[in-house]
Amino acid sequence: MKNKKEIIASIIIIGNEVLSGRTKDLNTSTLSVWLNSIGIIVREVRVIPDNEKTIIYTVNELRNKFDYIFTTGGIGPTHDDITAESISKAFNLEYGFHKEAFSILEKYYEPGEFNEGRQKMAKMPINAKLILNPSSGAPGFYVENVFCLPGVPSILKAMIGGISNILVGGKPILSKTINLRTYESEIAKSLTNVQNNNKDVEIGSYPFFRQGKLGVSIVLRSIDQNKINNSSSQILEFVKEKNIEVVEVD
Amino acid sequence: MKNKKEIIASIIIIGNEVLSGRTKDLNTSTLSVWLNSIGIIVREVRVIPDNEKTIIYTVNELRNKFDYIFTTGGIGPTHDDITAESISKAFNLEYGFHKEAFSILEKYYEPGEFNEGRQKMAKMPINAKLILNPSSGAPGFYVENVFCLPGVPSILKAMIGGISNILVGGKPILSKTINLRTYESEIAKSLTNVQNNNKDVEIGSYPFFRQGKLGVSIVLRSIDQNKINNSSSQILEFVKEKNIEVVEVD
Repeated sequence: MKNKKEIIASIIIIGNEVLSGRTKDLNTSTLSVWLNSIGIIVREVRVIPDNEKTIIYTVNELRNKFDYIFTTGGIGPTHDDITAESISKAFNLEYGFHKEAFSILEKYYEPGEFNEGRQKMAKMPINAKLILNPSSGAPGFYVENVFCLPGVPSILKAMIGGISNILVGGKPILSKTINLRTYESEIAKSLTNVQNNNKDVEIGSYPFFRQGKLGVSIVLRSIDQNKINNSSSQILEFVKEKNIEVVEVD
Repeated sequence: MKNKKEIIASIIIIGNEVLSGRTKDLNTSTLSVWLNSIGIIVREVRVIPDNEKTIIYTVNELRNKFDYIFTTGGIGPTHDDITAESISKAFNLEYGFHKEAFSILEKYYEPGEFNEGRQKMAKMPINAKLILNPSSGAPGFYVENVFCLPGVPSILKAMIGGISNILVGGKPILSKTINLRTYESEIAKSLTNVQNNNKDVEIGSYPFFRQGKLGVSIVLRSIDQNKINNSSSQILEFVKEKNIEVVEVD
């Protein structure tokens, strides 16, 4: 893995609530920003239902294609939380009470409060490694390159810090945003030239509407700050020639 | 398609800006809620990069597995907008100026303003059918069961009304939400029983934090209002027995 140029990841969002449109997925953004900061590039996200066959199929397809897989959702105490059992089946591992997880949860709850539902959260592949949960007790876990996190965004956020040093990333992905008061069509041709001259920088162009005014965000991404700065200079050059207002460079 | 019990769809979000975490995807929620209302169930969402090979591969894999595919993003005027050309290649269709789209855009812009960048938005599979855009001129398009929409959420929202009568859906998917002041683990066992007794209702359980208080949303989904009501009664029965506060039923 270390010899490869890019370390790539995929996120699997497990949840009918996202597919139904009821809940907007916030976890992709949290995970991607964090992973970029440690040099891991998210190349694909899949949102799939709480369905055992689909979870097993998707995890087994993707874990061979990507360096890391992150699943979110489905590790709570209710009947629709089937991620832990599905992951056990995907890896053909025994599903049952994880000793350390059981002990963590037993200590977390008041005596007499550690009921059947809560005990379910200690069930997972019995030899999985734990991802500790400083926010609400119940741990996540990982097996090989598959990391299983909860769906609740605030809890997920609290847990990812604990796995940063387990993951082997590359150089952090850096970015620069140039916000312009213009239309995409005004700069399309010049921007294509800059992209063609700077193959190692990913240049994205995104229209925005802010305070009733139209504009375009140009986003430059690369592991090399010099290459970003070069592209940025070339963009600001044609922007000046065209008399386009620069709203912000960040 | 009409003989099948369920009409299923997949959404393909095309955009590096979502994969990088910079932009949160709002279009899945808009599309899913609208599709549910016309009896089409979203079974999978994929977020993929602005990469021709990946777009072609993903579209061709999914268009045979689902009744409908909706893509969002990549149909603007800049170099990173490659959806229209990729779809042409996926279907092995000629990519070029679409006469009707060209004529719409020519009329939309002031004389002399219909520049090269804007003309690019008229390029697509030349025989594609158009999806009109009441918001900003540039149309989307569809080929067979693949519908290509823009990535900007407000423009996408304005365009979907125009295709409702082209899609053949099933019965609308109805839902009911019961918000309780409790923990998931308190109701897990009883809820499992209700799910087992009501196989045709999809019952989801989601913890929430609101105004500093914990609670659980139970979401019931089905095409049959009576079945939803039955499950709802059974849930409210055990809720009453357990002395759990009902915050809201919606």
